[in-house]
Amino acid sequence: MSADHPLRQWERIIIGIDPGTNVMGYGILGIKSRKPVMIAMGVIQLSKFESHYLRLSRIFTRVTSLIEQYLPDEMAIEAPFFGKNVQSMLKLGRAQGVAMAAALNRDIPITEYEPRKIKMAITGNGAASKEQVQEMLRRILNIPKENLLPQLDATDALGAALCHFYESSRPQIEKGCKSWKEFIAKHPDKVK
Amino acid sequence: MSADHPLRQWERIIIGIDPGTNVMGYGILGIKSRKPVMIAMGVIQLSKFESHYLRLSRIFTRVTSLIEQYLPDEMAIEAPFFGKNVQSMLKLGRAQGVAMAAALNRDIPITEYEPRKIKMAITGNGAASKEQVQEMLRRILNIPKENLLPQLDATDALGAALCHFYESSRPQIEKGCKSWKEFIAKHPDKVK
Repeated sequence: MSADHPLRQWERIIIGIDPGTNVMGYGILGIKSRKPVMIAMGVIQLSKFESHYLRLSRIFTRVTSLIEQYLPDEMAIEAPFFGKNVQSMLKLGRAQGVAMAAALNRDIPITEYEPRKIKMAITGNGAASKEQVQEMLRRILNIPKENLLPQLDATDALGAALCHFYESSRPQIEKGCKSWKEFIAKHPDKVK
Repeated sequence: MSADHPLRQWERIIIGIDPGTNVMGYGILGIKSRKPVMIAMGVIQLSKFESHYLRLSRIFTRVTSLIEQYLPDEMAIEAPFFGKNVQSMLKLGRAQGVAMAAALNRDIPITEYEPRKIKMAITGNGAASKEQVQEMLRRILNIPKENLLPQLDATDALGAALCHFYESSRPQIEKGCKSWKEFIAKHPDKVK
């Protein structure tokens, strides 16, 4: 990257991915002065491709081109661990695997988060609706309403990236502190 | 490929893959004068890697390097459609997805076959044991006994490649013929 490349301004760039076999969402988060800013978000429409392989191929090429364009340092992926049935989980696993391969191909570390964990990190409620996650993301990241996409998969992906930012930048819980509650009790000055 | 490249001798090269999260088998089949010949077979040991991501990364890099080394025209993949539970299917789907991404990355068409279909194609019995598949492959492909690997995942992968060769090179069943039985009855000269 050249010294005046526009991506130079970011201390860290995180790509969030919400993989699905019909629609894949993505969100690119930049960190500047320890603050997260939305760089880009969008969806990859897959339902127009009838063949399962065309869909997987599309995921790989699009995620690869997002990585080439935004040069993320890390990937955060929304990954449900349970599903309706073995068939749908196999398909979901393939979609996840292909998206992960695009990151592994560039040595980008991957962290996965359960949807419940992402909802909790963004809204404080693990059972929040996708609309609630979107609204909170809009407020936290100051996204103008007209910039929001109707597809909630895009905000889900951005949520994964923001959840990863929170998880990776929170102070390490000291040894002997088994919970946040305990940590806060010991360090009241670190809590605003 | 240069004119005197040793892979030039083959009319077609098929890579067979048996993806798993502990061991991944592969087999490379070359076709010369319409006859299948084993070029290589082996396994990728994954159980030594504790991290799920290291395993997936290993699958991607090894399958990519096999593709670069043997320049296959097609990929055949052994793909069970049912599994014990959603968790194991998600993991299997990821392993399959990562192996498929290596092929999709090079525009290599992928065909998947159920284990039962492969066993049927090789041994004539869809419920054959892995050992029976190995023994039949050894005979069909004239593999010296000392060249066989103890790992049955390698022969399973080679079986997927051979199954794909049979499937893709058998004469098209004419319209009006609903089964092989009917086709054979109509064309006794085509059956040896």
